[in-house]
Amino acid sequence: MEKNLKLFREKIREKKMIEGALEVLQWDLETVAPKKGKENLAQIVGYLSMKEYELTTSKEFEDCVEILKENIEKLNEIEKKEIEELAEDIEKMKKIPPYEYQDYSELIARTQGIWEEAKIENNYEKYRDSLKKIVEYTIKFANYHKKDEKNLYDVILKDYEKGMTTEKLDEFFSMLKKEIVPLLKKIKEKGNPKKQLLQKTKIENQKKFNRFIGEYLGFDFDRGVGAESEHPFTMNITKNDVRLTTKYMEDNPMSAIFSTIHETGHGIYEQQIRDNLQGTILASGGSMGIHESQSRFYENILGRDIHFWKNIYKKAQEFMPFLEKISLEDFYKEINLVEPSLIRTEADELTYSLHIMVRYEIEKGLLTNELNIDDLPKIWKEKMNEYLGVIPTTDSEGIMQDVHWAAGLIGYFPSYALGSAYAAQIYNTMKKEIDVDNILETGELFKIKEWLGNKIHKYGKLKETPEIIKEVTGEELNPRYYIEYLKEKYTKIYNL
Amino acid sequence: MEKNLKLFREKIREKKMIEGALEVLQWDLETVAPKKGKENLAQIVGYLSMKEYELTTSKEFEDCVEILKENIEKLNEIEKKEIEELAEDIEKMKKIPPYEYQDYSELIARTQGIWEEAKIENNYEKYRDSLKKIVEYTIKFANYHKKDEKNLYDVILKDYEKGMTTEKLDEFFSMLKKEIVPLLKKIKEKGNPKKQLLQKTKIENQKKFNRFIGEYLGFDFDRGVGAESEHPFTMNITKNDVRLTTKYMEDNPMSAIFSTIHETGHGIYEQQIRDNLQGTILASGGSMGIHESQSRFYENILGRDIHFWKNIYKKAQEFMPFLEKISLEDFYKEINLVEPSLIRTEADELTYSLHIMVRYEIEKGLLTNELNIDDLPKIWKEKMNEYLGVIPTTDSEGIMQDVHWAAGLIGYFPSYALGSAYAAQIYNTMKKEIDVDNILETGELFKIKEWLGNKIHKYGKLKETPEIIKEVTGEELNPRYYIEYLKEKYTKIYNL
Repeated sequence: MEKNLKLFREKIREKKMIEGALEVLQWDLETVAPKKGKENLAQIVGYLSMKEYELTTSKEFEDCVEILKENIEKLNEIEKKEIEELAEDIEKMKKIPPYEYQDYSELIARTQGIWEEAKIENNYEKYRDSLKKIVEYTIKFANYHKKDEKNLYDVILKDYEKGMTTEKLDEFFSMLKKEIVPLLKKIKEKGNPKKQLLQKTKIENQKKFNRFIGEYLGFDFDRGVGAESEHPFTMNITKNDVRLTTKYMEDNPMSAIFSTIHETGHGIYEQQIRDNLQGTILASGGSMGIHESQSRFYENILGRDIHFWKNIYKKAQEFMPFLEKISLEDFYKEINLVEPSLIRTEADELTYSLHIMVRYEIEKGLLTNELNIDDLPKIWKEKMNEYLGVIPTTDSEGIMQDVHWAAGLIGYFPSYALGSAYAAQIYNTMKKEIDVDNILETGELFKIKEWLGNKIHKYGKLKETPEIIKEVTGEELNPRYYIEYLKEKYTKIYNL
Repeated sequence: MEKNLKLFREKIREKKMIEGALEVLQWDLETVAPKKGKENLAQIVGYLSMKEYELTTSKEFEDCVEILKENIEKLNEIEKKEIEELAEDIEKMKKIPPYEYQDYSELIARTQGIWEEAKIENNYEKYRDSLKKIVEYTIKFANYHKKDEKNLYDVILKDYEKGMTTEKLDEFFSMLKKEIVPLLKKIKEKGNPKKQLLQKTKIENQKKFNRFIGEYLGFDFDRGVGAESEHPFTMNITKNDVRLTTKYMEDNPMSAIFSTIHETGHGIYEQQIRDNLQGTILASGGSMGIHESQSRFYENILGRDIHFWKNIYKKAQEFMPFLEKISLEDFYKEINLVEPSLIRTEADELTYSLHIMVRYEIEKGLLTNELNIDDLPKIWKEKMNEYLGVIPTTDSEGIMQDVHWAAGLIGYFPSYALGSAYAAQIYNTMKKEIDVDNILETGELFKIKEWLGNKIHKYGKLKETPEIIKEVTGEELNPRYYIEYLKEKYTKIYNL
């Protein structure tokens, strides 16, 4: 027992070393590596992924985990959870043949570069075959992992959000649709004021202001960095090395700002994980849904609140002098402008879930083989037209806008919508306990960071999302909070 | 035999994968990683170095190399050289106990971060203990590796420049000293014009011009990147992923320019290695000396030639408008200004070797235990005063100015001086074969790149430096070319 626990810690340390190297390689591929150097790095990613696979599925390690599992009552809370998670991982990994695992890892590493180029060139053809292979592997792996789930999509959903099913999601999205679509209609009738925020702003100035925003929210740059990438993301190597990226556009400074606030939400989560989880496999945020709840909480609930901007509007004007001619009220209205659009990451809070629905339905169709990869650009357009009433003219603004599928993350998208729902429910509780409006106006953001840290962040993967949501808010996920939040906010803004 | 050759290639592939990951981690540590994330990355470097060590020293691989060595006449030229190199490496590596190897690798990865902070804070105390450990390991390892060398410094010299000895270096440096010191004296008597090039230039503009310079020299940015770091360096992951760094200073635009030209010289070398060496252990530049000959050739012989600037002075003025008031002739004189100074990387071509002598003598003293780590700041000042007549007031500008020792590269410095000497000798041949002045004036730098590519770069590590020098110039290293080059150039510039 003692011996096995020691072996277990050694192996976990090795596993985390390899994962750390993989994270750095991934970071490098997406933010640094030159075009023609990417293939080699993709191969290294494949090689190291294989090494991790070998370690995790080795007889020695499996036996060790097995023995610890039999003696689980003797372990502490952290070890228990680690063993549970690992036993599950090992079981899953062992079902994938080694050469498929390596091939898939290389495919994923390589496809992100291909996607990036294809997107820039608006060339779906270039991306299609790699995407097809990823979908095929996803189906293959889901078949390996299927137990008593009703369908393959339910199998992959478990990777992102335990306890979630297509049945529940179908219901969740239909509720949203029922409420959002009429609200949208009313807003459309009201019409929007003229846009004033799409103004040329030097990237240098944008960078400085975004750095300020990151620090203002409480991100610790001694334990993290910011960089640029085609698609913004957050990466945690350890809680002391959390990395955020942003994409800057000269004529749309707001885009980078809200993207930064979003990624900072993810980053603060990672930076606040308890020290005693470091070195364990629980030392990162929980499910994708709870992670997105934090980023979307920061981005939308805080970042698009007028109280948030009251305190820093002067600062914003320093870096974006054009704001001097725009009143805070007009600014507030425009950052909350509701308008069906093409790009998910640029979508307003209200139409956002509709973008997710498009992806959710396509993912379901891909997993059941009802949809053909060749038809995706067409289907994308049809669904965008159906739900949002807008049609992209290029595939770069359509089917290729997101990196997720290129990164193998099929089944991730619903987490964004779930995250928004969790966020609204958490916000409802938070407001009862601390004076959020006042905190925003006085710039004491650390109080919000602390509240989230104590209630959610510190646990890392120690607790499952349903457990956290229950503990923090007193009930299970209830989409009503999200719907009420949206209704109240937009009824007021649009004076409905 | 067939089987062993296959196993050999597989193992080499693995070795190169691990080395590639290590390079990326190293790059990340020096250009990206946040302060508090460095310790974790250093541990990953230690872990992966250990894996490479295990691979290289495994019985399986050793036996394989042994069998191939016995059948060496059946191998092709590339394989032969690989086996020779590897047999040597294995022999050396096996003499180091595994735990020492890992500990040393982590020490090296960690110390670079410590050095960086210590240098910024001008705090030698902070750096001293790590440096001490590195020196101790260097001595320990040199003792393990010692065969029939006369002293420990000769042992470590072999890592950087095969065939070089303290005896030869002592002679080389004394020749230089004998010629340079009187030349310096004459120049001092003549005096220098007022400096005009230390003018504030926005980092953004500097970056743009440096990018232009890189491309102008022929560096392929599809197969490489540029970034910033505290100490400029070049890294080659493969010939398709070559990375350069520069350090920018707002009030000294020339510093970054010559640093960029220097690193681009290294980079072009790596990018021109023959394709059929890819995937072998010969796929990088030869000895440190020959590598430095290329960077110093680009930096000094081309970059400080008036013909080079004739063609791009207008372009330079676009990014540095203050140059409009400075004539090309005055510019040329100032970039070749001779003046004893504190910082090696900023030193002029003539006093440069004296900086190397300071380091060479200290390194020799450290290896013989004649010098104490605690006394280094003091000794540094004394030697700087003796050879250059200047004394640093801070250790950041003294003993801590270079990263090399922190990176474990004790014994590297002489390569810079040797590089300058090789460069002058190569230049002497090149001028007979192509019209360098005309090429520079017409901006056809690719012709020089091609000449160097065909004569030197393409061979990677396939040929040893003495062999290359002999083939290209018709004779062995002869410091007279270097001395003549310096005499002729500076006699003219200073009208002596």
